[in-house]
Amino acid sequence: MAQITVLVESEVRNLVGLGTGELDVIEAVYPAISAGAASMPPIQRIDVPEHNGEIDIKSAYLPGFDGIAVKVSAGFFDNPARGLPSLGGLILVFESDTGLPAAALFDNGYLTNVRTALAGAVAARHLATQGANAVGVLGAGVQARLQVEALTLVRPVANVRVWARRSDEAERLAAELRSDLDVEASAVDAPGDAVCAGGILVTTTPATEPLVTAAMLQPGLHITAVGSDAEHKQEISVDAVEAVDVVVCDSRSQSARLGELRAPGASGREVAAVELGEVITGDAAGRVGDDQVTLCDLTGTGAQDTAIASLVMARARDASIGRRLQA
Amino acid sequence: MAQITVLVESEVRNLVGLGTGELDVIEAVYPAISAGAASMPPIQRIDVPEHNGEIDIKSAYLPGFDGIAVKVSAGFFDNPARGLPSLGGLILVFESDTGLPAAALFDNGYLTNVRTALAGAVAARHLATQGANAVGVLGAGVQARLQVEALTLVRPVANVRVWARRSDEAERLAAELRSDLDVEASAVDAPGDAVCAGGILVTTTPATEPLVTAAMLQPGLHITAVGSDAEHKQEISVDAVEAVDVVVCDSRSQSARLGELRAPGASGREVAAVELGEVITGDAAGRVGDDQVTLCDLTGTGAQDTAIASLVMARARDASIGRRLQA
Repeated sequence: MAQITVLVESEVRNLVGLGTGELDVIEAVYPAISAGAASMPPIQRIDVPEHNGEIDIKSAYLPGFDGIAVKVSAGFFDNPARGLPSLGGLILVFESDTGLPAAALFDNGYLTNVRTALAGAVAARHLATQGANAVGVLGAGVQARLQVEALTLVRPVANVRVWARRSDEAERLAAELRSDLDVEASAVDAPGDAVCAGGILVTTTPATEPLVTAAMLQPGLHITAVGSDAEHKQEISVDAVEAVDVVVCDSRSQSARLGELRAPGASGREVAAVELGEVITGDAAGRVGDDQVTLCDLTGTGAQDTAIASLVMARARDASIGRRLQA
Repeated sequence: MAQITVLVESEVRNLVGLGTGELDVIEAVYPAISAGAASMPPIQRIDVPEHNGEIDIKSAYLPGFDGIAVKVSAGFFDNPARGLPSLGGLILVFESDTGLPAAALFDNGYLTNVRTALAGAVAARHLATQGANAVGVLGAGVQARLQVEALTLVRPVANVRVWARRSDEAERLAAELRSDLDVEASAVDAPGDAVCAGGILVTTTPATEPLVTAAMLQPGLHITAVGSDAEHKQEISVDAVEAVDVVVCDSRSQSARLGELRAPGASGREVAAVELGEVITGDAAGRVGDDQVTLCDLTGTGAQDTAIASLVMARARDASIGRRLQA
């Protein structure tokens, strides 16, 4: 009989967050992805057109981890009118040696937010200039906020510029960052105003037309693009991707299908890209000079869910948090 | 905030079983499948070769049901050597109008067994001769047992003949049926000995070479084939499928890919088949004479999981059974 750990969002939040332990766990995933060790089947998607909703299922088996995560993410876009969040979901974990259910983490998407922000920090750790202290962010949602916070783990962030389509949202996030993170932060009028030589730019929008053009690039800039995760999304123009010195992605095949390598490929302008895992292990070169422009496209992988969920379970066990069911 | 119902196997077993209420719920699914109303994405499969295991994820959205079921089934074939069952899994239910998680049913595959057996009874209700009282069954596992029990809901089953590759298992099941179901039951030496004119034959094996040939068919026989659910499985020979008067399946596309319509198609001998839902609504003819031979191929659908899981939740709510989490 399996013993199953059941946790709700508040418990998960108490167990993991934007810390250096979590950062190292997420970083360790990328070499495994690049070595081809992770088995990640195509995403399963259920459309619920009557309610403007969809459910996506992502999973991954990563040899060496005790658990296999199956993540079910829901996006129901009529929910806000009913006072409910649009995005939610949960992560199931199965024992990788027996297939028995080991955990159900009813996190409402929290772990996805955390692992995505930590991935941005991993990218910056390996690709941004060492002294990068200026951060620009496009978008003003939860992910924009978390990306900036995660970057403080790896770089001496001192100044943040926020651009969002809605300027009031950009102002609100800038104020929040000033009060919570001990940084200068201000809203800017155009995406290009968020860019700074030698700094970091994080793009977190669901844009379907590029926001970042080649003309905006500055010497030493590192860009992390986390917004595009579907065939119709694009934040970085093809010209800009071509103009970058070092193009990196979390998963080459996924980035070419869903991320910022899709548009170049579709227009016959293939761009040479290396994987973040290859940069981490040293099998591929990352930044080799302070004036180079680097780009890391993150589409998100099931392997990250497996890694962060495994960490939650280990900490829950150590701290005796959550319900244990005999099933 | 979502309220989530969490049930373990023993609780699920107390709530649903092989009853007429459950039968009607499963029957109602087939017209929806045939009307194209059910949305069932392709199965997601995670292979875990290091542990001789696989995890399959099946889901379905069925307009008119409050819940969307996502079923995760695990098959880890080294488990028995460790004293653990090979097959397991659970069903998640999401609210179909908001996508919020509504239930986690840690049933270890019980609901799949029940809904599969009930599907066999639905097929027999619509296709077997009215007086069919002789049942043959190929295979002696859990599903063989449940198929016979479910048939007692719809036909006056009096005599059961069991064939299995291992004769001791066939003897064991026959003894069990005699003592539990008030029927005559005996083990037979060959698949053909389980067949009876005007009776029912249920095939429940993982055979990869056909067990039922055209020469075995008898006037009035109805066959329900539940074993084949993968590209490499086959219980009924192409000759036999061609010789049957009325060929029915749960899902035409799935049967042609994974079920007993695959082999005829692959050998260029396409067989005309109607769907069980069309027979139930009267849109297609089923049996039109007591001497006809009928075949119903059941590959299993996510829509059935949605239907049975919704019933479990409704009954759990009414009976105040299970844990309720605020997540």
